[in-house]
Amino acid sequence: MKSDSGLASWLQLTLTPGLGPSTIRQLLKKFGLPEQVLSRSRSELARMAPRATFDALDSTEVVEAVSRAREWAAQEGHAVVTLADEAYPKPLLEIADPPTLLYAHGRLELLGRPALAVVGSRNATAQGERNAEAFARTFSEAGLTIVSGLALGIDTAAHRGGLTGRGSTIAVLGTGIDVTYPARNAGLAHDISRTGLLLSEFPLETKAAAHNFPRRNRLISGLAQGCLVVEAALGSGSLITARSAAEQGREVFAIPGSIHSPLSKGCHALIKAGAKLVESADDVLSELSGRGICEPATPRGGRTTVTDPLLTQMGFDPIDVDSLCARSGLSADQVSSQLLRLELAGLVTALPGGLFQRLD
Amino acid sequence: MKSDSGLASWLQLTLTPGLGPSTIRQLLKKFGLPEQVLSRSRSELARMAPRATFDALDSTEVVEAVSRAREWAAQEGHAVVTLADEAYPKPLLEIADPPTLLYAHGRLELLGRPALAVVGSRNATAQGERNAEAFARTFSEAGLTIVSGLALGIDTAAHRGGLTGRGSTIAVLGTGIDVTYPARNAGLAHDISRTGLLLSEFPLETKAAAHNFPRRNRLISGLAQGCLVVEAALGSGSLITARSAAEQGREVFAIPGSIHSPLSKGCHALIKAGAKLVESADDVLSELSGRGICEPATPRGGRTTVTDPLLTQMGFDPIDVDSLCARSGLSADQVSSQLLRLELAGLVTALPGGLFQRLD
Repeated sequence: MKSDSGLASWLQLTLTPGLGPSTIRQLLKKFGLPEQVLSRSRSELARMAPRATFDALDSTEVVEAVSRAREWAAQEGHAVVTLADEAYPKPLLEIADPPTLLYAHGRLELLGRPALAVVGSRNATAQGERNAEAFARTFSEAGLTIVSGLALGIDTAAHRGGLTGRGSTIAVLGTGIDVTYPARNAGLAHDISRTGLLLSEFPLETKAAAHNFPRRNRLISGLAQGCLVVEAALGSGSLITARSAAEQGREVFAIPGSIHSPLSKGCHALIKAGAKLVESADDVLSELSGRGICEPATPRGGRTTVTDPLLTQMGFDPIDVDSLCARSGLSADQVSSQLLRLELAGLVTALPGGLFQRLD
Repeated sequence: MKSDSGLASWLQLTLTPGLGPSTIRQLLKKFGLPEQVLSRSRSELARMAPRATFDALDSTEVVEAVSRAREWAAQEGHAVVTLADEAYPKPLLEIADPPTLLYAHGRLELLGRPALAVVGSRNATAQGERNAEAFARTFSEAGLTIVSGLALGIDTAAHRGGLTGRGSTIAVLGTGIDVTYPARNAGLAHDISRTGLLLSEFPLETKAAAHNFPRRNRLISGLAQGCLVVEAALGSGSLITARSAAEQGREVFAIPGSIHSPLSKGCHALIKAGAKLVESADDVLSELSGRGICEPATPRGGRTTVTDPLLTQMGFDPIDVDSLCARSGLSADQVSSQLLRLELAGLVTALPGGLFQRLD
């Protein structure tokens, strides 16, 4: 994917303590590729960050960390994807703070597919997990890659649903890619590394630390074109992912639930703030296909589309209730009630002047 | 409330078969009060509707029906309120098709109060009925009169909740006001006639007929400043009421629920179409008090308002996360997560440029 010394330079920059993505982007902008950055004198570089930071570039710790990362990257199925690589996910280039590089384990081609983030509570209800898995399976069958965070609860269910379809799944880790967290998901992580993709921006061996997860969440939302929150308490990490998604211009979707369930309060807050209420996977697929992101939702047997007699009698021109009564032999109230049903199903729209029109 | 012969003329017009509210309004507009309409020659009137209709004005059936209605109106607690009466509810004057007169039994003064329609399924869940009653009680305690349709299920629970507070309740019937429908609600109707108000636009003795209920529903929404749907299946009458409310410029509110409950699908369809998602009675009261319709919601113990330390540290000027970290001693991630929580609770708003501001 790149010359070995090229990769070494990328790793050297990112593994040097004190050099964050934003400083590195400034360096790349000013001097070119990492090899060119590193060919500059340390005093020249020191105009962009404290001198001590650049002195650390050649420390034993950094040299050894680079060496370990190169060994890791050389193994079967492993890759380090940098900002300069063709495989670097395009959607991340649109976000405010794209990572300099990503450690990847699995099917790199998934980074080029349309994707949907599916996230939610670690302490989900059984029904919430069933919803997450069923929705994710439908999305994956429709060709969307499911992005989530390998946490217990909703994330786990979303990954499992994703793995069953052609869209598969990407797990973005808040730890080093060689650290399995949570331990209970070791089996799932293994499955994802074989038919999906594990991804992390953190150096190898980075242990789980609370402050890394919100940072990771911006990648979950950033990698996807939309973000579905299945169950979330107020103040939970899933809402941070949803906020990232909204800030990144992604569509936010949320599944409602009982007003008495603490795990629905986060979703309800999102809907109040403008997220789309979602009752079925088709709700999401229609929205995304309308924006050209994925294929249209499969028509289901339950839809009124073809079989509804009133819809057939309407034709495609605007029509009033009286004419519909005449055509259908129904009373005005029957027609009104059926029109309302069709309107709510998105098949008919009400026009000014008491007219109605079929939509599809 | 008006001269006896005046009332007789109003009744004579409305009790004549074939004369609907819209024709009657045209007659009133052209000739003045009903007494003046009736003083015109029948051939003069016949320019506005078929001659046979006006011939029926003096039929035995109409004369006897007027007489029975006058006897009914003379009884304690009974009234007939016409378009010309001071007591005629002002909100109904704004709707497309206000009834010419209303039969009323109970506390007429409730027609002058701010009101909220609370409607929903006849086959409600136990939780739905509990929600309806609890919400209605809170609204009524806040001074809102609960308007509903005396049906079983949600309507019944809403009326019961309304009766417990100072706002009380109005039941708008789809039958004659002297017909108890459904029979199982005879006791509730009796209670409402004593401390609330029964209302109908239909002539005495009008039996329950399917086509009268959608017509009645426009009055439920029209009498109120907002309409809350508690539980409703797709295609149900409650959605017709909600649509009337929207057409009449009333705010529509809906309570979400499980995506697997058929009784939540109507509410979800409304929220998708723009209705406000409601988790608590306070959600409705805040919205209505913001529009000057009722008193502000009572602050509850559970609110973060005063006790949240970060909120206190924010002050009331825009502030960035770094400054908040310095003030609070918290990490950037902790501050971000707390800000999100406060934002979702409506206590803080995010401003451009990474600034946040306290809202109350």
